Amino acid sequence: MIRVGIVGGTGYTGVELLRILILHPNVEIHQVTSRSDTGLRIDALYPSLRGLCDIVFSLPDVETLSECDVVFFATPNGTAMLMAEQLLKHNVKVIDLSADFRIKDHNEWSKWYGMDHACPSLINDAVYGLPEVNRQAIKDANLLACPGCYPTAVQLGFLPLIENKLIDFSNLIADVKSGVSGAGRKAQVSTLMSESGESFKAYAVAGHRHMPEIIQGLAIAAKQNIGLTFVPHLIPMIRGIHATLYGQISGNITNIQEQFEQRYKNELFVDVLAEGECPDTRNVRGSNKCQIAIHQPQGGNTLVVLSVIDNLVKGAAGQAVQNMNIMFGFEESQGLSTVALYP
Amino acid sequence: MIRVGIVGGTGYTGVELLRILILHPNVEIHQVTSRSDTGLRIDALYPSLRGLCDIVFSLPDVETLSECDVVFFATPNGTAMLMAEQLLKHNVKVIDLSADFRIKDHNEWSKWYGMDHACPSLINDAVYGLPEVNRQAIKDANLLACPGCYPTAVQLGFLPLIENKLIDFSNLIADVKSGVSGAGRKAQVSTLMSESGESFKAYAVAGHRHMPEIIQGLAIAAKQNIGLTFVPHLIPMIRGIHATLYGQISGNITNIQEQFEQRYKNELFVDVLAEGECPDTRNVRGSNKCQIAIHQPQGGNTLVVLSVIDNLVKGAAGQAVQNMNIMFGFEESQGLSTVALYP
Amino acid sequence: MIRVGIVGGTGYTGVELLRILILHPNVEIHQVTSRSDTGLRIDALYPSLRGLCDIVFSLPDVETLSECDVVFFATPNGTAMLMAEQLLKHNVKVIDLSADFRIKDHNEWSKWYGMDHACPSLINDAVYGLPEVNRQAIKDANLLACPGCYPTAVQLGFLPLIENKLIDFSNLIADVKSGVSGAGRKAQVSTLMSESGESFKAYAVAGHRHMPEIIQGLAIAAKQNIGLTFVPHLIPMIRGIHATLYGQISGNITNIQEQFEQRYKNELFVDVLAEGECPDTRNVRGSNKCQIAIHQPQGGNTLVVLSVIDNLVKGAAGQAVQNMNIMFGFEESQGLSTVALYP
Amino acid sequence: MIRVGIVGGTGYTGVELLRILILHPNVEIHQVTSRSDTGLRIDALYPSLRGLCDIVFSLPDVETLSECDVVFFATPNGTAMLMAEQLLKHNVKVIDLSADFRIKDHNEWSKWYGMDHACPSLINDAVYGLPEVNRQAIKDANLLACPGCYPTAVQLGFLPLIENKLIDFSNLIADVKSGVSGAGRKAQVSTLMSESGESFKAYAVAGHRHMPEIIQGLAIAAKQNIGLTFVPHLIPMIRGIHATLYGQISGNITNIQEQFEQRYKNELFVDVLAEGECPDTRNVRGSNKCQIAIHQPQGGNTLVVLSVIDNLVKGAAGQAVQNMNIMFGFEESQGLSTVALYP
Repeated sequence: MIRVGIVGGTGYTGVELLRILILHPNVEIHQVTSRSDTGLRIDALYPSLRGLCDIVFSLPDVETLSECDVVFFATPNGTAMLMAEQLLKHNVKVIDLSADFRIKDHNEWSKWYGMDHACPSLINDAVYGLPEVNRQAIKDANLLACPGCYPTAVQLGFLPLIENKLIDFSNLIADVKSGVSGAGRKAQVSTLMSESGESFKAYAVAGHRHMPEIIQGLAIAAKQNIGLTFVPHLIPMIRGIHATLYGQISGNITNIQEQFEQRYKNELFVDVLAEGECPDTRNVRGSNKCQIAIHQPQGGNTLVVLSVIDNLVKGAAGQAVQNMNIMFGFEESQGLSTVALYP
Repeated sequence: MIRVGIVGGTGYTGVELLRILILHPNVEIHQVTSRSDTGLRIDALYPSLRGLCDIVFSLPDVETLSECDVVFFATPNGTAMLMAEQLLKHNVKVIDLSADFRIKDHNEWSKWYGMDHACPSLINDAVYGLPEVNRQAIKDANLLACPGCYPTAVQLGFLPLIENKLIDFSNLIADVKSGVSGAGRKAQVSTLMSESGESFKAYAVAGHRHMPEIIQGLAIAAKQNIGLTFVPHLIPMIRGIHATLYGQISGNITNIQEQFEQRYKNELFVDVLAEGECPDTRNVRGSNKCQIAIHQPQGGNTLVVLSVIDNLVKGAAGQAVQNMNIMFGFEESQGLSTVALYP
Repeated sequence: MIRVGIVGGTGYTGVELLRILILHPNVEIHQVTSRSDTGLRIDALYPSLRGLCDIVFSLPDVETLSECDVVFFATPNGTAMLMAEQLLKHNVKVIDLSADFRIKDHNEWSKWYGMDHACPSLINDAVYGLPEVNRQAIKDANLLACPGCYPTAVQLGFLPLIENKLIDFSNLIADVKSGVSGAGRKAQVSTLMSESGESFKAYAVAGHRHMPEIIQGLAIAAKQNIGLTFVPHLIPMIRGIHATLYGQISGNITNIQEQFEQRYKNELFVDVLAEGECPDTRNVRGSNKCQIAIHQPQGGNTLVVLSVIDNLVKGAAGQAVQNMNIMFGFEESQGLSTVALYP
Repeated sequence: MIRVGIVGGTGYTGVELLRILILHPNVEIHQVTSRSDTGLRIDALYPSLRGLCDIVFSLPDVETLSECDVVFFATPNGTAMLMAEQLLKHNVKVIDLSADFRIKDHNEWSKWYGMDHACPSLINDAVYGLPEVNRQAIKDANLLACPGCYPTAVQLGFLPLIENKLIDFSNLIADVKSGVSGAGRKAQVSTLMSESGESFKAYAVAGHRHMPEIIQGLAIAAKQNIGLTFVPHLIPMIRGIHATLYGQISGNITNIQEQFEQRYKNELFVDVLAEGECPDTRNVRGSNKCQIAIHQPQGGNTLVVLSVIDNLVKGAAGQAVQNMNIMFGFEESQGLSTVALYP
């Protein structure tokens, strides 16, 4: 049984962490912080947790958090980098769901996130928490940077093509669509139901913050630079990401279906669908699964990979718990064996 | 470990039973039948179950089903009544999620369901599976009639008012709203997304099949006839029922909040919200909970009860498993301790 | 051709006024004001108007507005009452879509709207703009108070029952459901798509601002006090209100269908459906129609009226234009003859 | 005033034609046919038309239809080709909204539509009704083949790039998303709200019927073969198509924004958004507009065009009426000047 703290428990990734951790057999939730809702019972804000959790939101303070074995940051960007160092000094492991420690080049990070990095010296110690790539390093990590939601769906879809050098690295296209919960739980006009319901649009076509993260991850796999066009879209639904990935064939794609199956055969949370299938975001709703299919339409030169996740689970809180399980030597699926909610 | 069969595994209550039972620690799924999809792997039809279930749909036959300890019927009305007798003879317990054994008066049943009852002799043996009313009888039941979705939400909301004689029994009003999954997984125009999305309507105002079931249950609690106006509506969403119940005060409503809390204080799956709160269907989505609030607007003569459930869980498959747990002496919450999926 | 001003053009009722008035053959839009978006072209904020409107949002000033024949207030409550008097002095007619002049008792108004009324002397001059009740007075009105969305749907449904003394006036129940656009275009968490999508709830059960307005209107029709229980709900969709109204029979309901048809036979925008039908909000989406059906379930003592409108059209901007047409002697349907958008 | 017939009035494109034509000042609707609903009043099936249309569905017969000036086919594929010849002989113009006369190569047509073409001799006479390409030919057309919904959005987006030779023709990618109304009004499981609500998926990745139509249109513009990867997706909403189009720069893209604006400057129904904007399907909902934006993300080698339409208007019934207007010498915008329904 480990003691867990959650900093920033009022957002969607915070409450999703609670949904998962409350039923995790090896976890005791020690503190959940929220500046805006300090003093309020969590289940008053989130009645879905009634009967399961009598914790009260408190102010984040290092002293109490230091009594934890691990602290999750489900905070806006720019918060974890202010507290991580102190917690690490107290031998508390840190799992950051925000972007603070994802990008290795802190100047690049500053450019996209619009602020100076408060703690650049720690960036190199941070392990990028995509278990399907970094499992060994995650085991020993003290500071873990959880991947973004888009980057998780896109990287898991492209990795077999890139690692096996099957496509032209200079011209990758990721046409990605996300449900509105990815925009978080903050008061704003653009994600009101009247604005984003019954409508579909692209956004941030000129450049989205998740692009450098995807490029960094794919370039490591490619062992060279890669060129990516990344267009995110907003789907009129709550949960789910669907990545449609395009690459131009440049390698040996014989048995490409098998190459995908082989790549993920030992991965509990990546599921390669049968040939010809198309994944549907509903089939991973509420679960930590990524479902993937690979197509070569009309036998042409363009490969199409379809990759779906629940942005709040495999794209955030679920992957964070998967990382925690690896870091503490628990079964990797502990607390994550729920079935997707269909219909 | 008990052996479980499911007859009619392709509908929404069937796949919801699978979602719950697959993770139930005391259950082994022995057979899942489907006339339309015989020979197909279940997870080919429902990719949300991939990796969790390698069962193939088979034709329903009494011989194989007789090897089970309990058989669930997640079939259209009129099927369970054809097979229940034989299974009971083989000492198989039967849990029927359809309406076949809910109504004690078989002529009344025939009137509403448009067919003769094939097995009227068994109706009296059937126990109506609302644990909050019939727990003791359920323990010894061999044939269990699971309540309908509307009747569950309406009865749980009205029961404290009726048992405590707080309202005029002659004039109850139940204005109830349901998500479209209540209409089932069958090809029809009226529940196409283009028809039922972004729109709201009442239906079956002249008389809905669940009305006699609600009246029967409430009359038993009242120990006299009751008068009910029941108007069902269709909500443009998938899961959830919201019952708004109206009664005219005729008894002592002092401490009415306490009377509700008292009534359900030992019930795991009925949760009375704090005074002034309004339940939201999302807070029980995917869970077996019923959340209830009681209001007396403007201190007037009309009481308003708000009662929400997930129609596929507490309104169908979850309640069926709760009944199974009681019948077999398992913890009542076994397999049902999931947290609602919010957002 | 009249000159029209719109104060508060950035909210949903403002843009809906523009959608209708831009195509109105007797109208020239002279000024559209917005404090927050002054200087911005309207079609930059609302690309649906591109090619139809080159107006720029300006600050509201009485001088420019005084050049108009009529000014619409599509503002939050509390704004129109500050400017109406000056405009009226300049012989500008005022049509207020907010609640400022709806309630005749200004103390009652203050109680519900939480502020003192800035201009109580004008309240008595204001005509309540429900054409189906007040057409004659509207013709001569200079200050028009447009009804709220809930009050429109509820009053049109109850009026035939009350005017014909068919029900017990002491115990009316209005169970009403609205799409989220009724909450307006303002940044807030509760109407985010992640919060209000795929969910259904009641709210303001203890008392909603539209209650005194409904009671006032129905009491005038009844020529006596009436008792009302009013429970509003939020539907996970954008446009539409569905009122389900309950009354206890106390008069002669012979030919009740005919009594409804008779009441509205000369009304262009109120449509009584055939016996047994149920209205669907989609069938009035984008149109100024109210569709109504009357039921007596099981021949019992409770009458059920179903009444649907588009909250932004007959419940706001469309009704405002209908009133303008009457006030200026135009055809009442001018600019309002669009067909509902189905599917 | 011309006399219009509609064959197949019960589907979504049929009722959408009615929505538009009922208010068209130059049109009298003479006959609306439906095999399944013969004898039923149209407004009984579609209450949105109550008060506007007292026509009764009749069986399609050439004699009555021959009294029309123009007949629209809003039928499933394979019907128009059986009746067009006879109607043309009676000097009735034919506007086919189905796919029967879109593809010039009837063997290619048979391959994709799974039947022999019943009337290949007429295919060459048919004019492909994309006014932005074929306006001159449309003026003289007697048999008009209305473009499909996907082909309209994709071609309008790609045309400026292709006509001006700005991109590599061998490798076009069209990642296109459609609301569910594109699947039509037929009873089927896959477009039930419980199946397609709150979920997103690709489909027909191996090959969709609209692909040869798009390739044919773009190849004509390119005056050479083109290579296309076309991946359609289903959006959980009712109306709207969003095409995200990718091309590799191979020409002079200086002033590319101007090149787009120039291409469509005389087109009433194609609207090029300002630089940096992203179109939103809601802004064309219910209107005949196509809104387009052109991006060059990060100044790279990939151009991204975003193109949105309402699939039932510019993608079907609206474009059909636009074609009718051209064929009969009416104002091209006649009957089509409605404003999109936002929100």
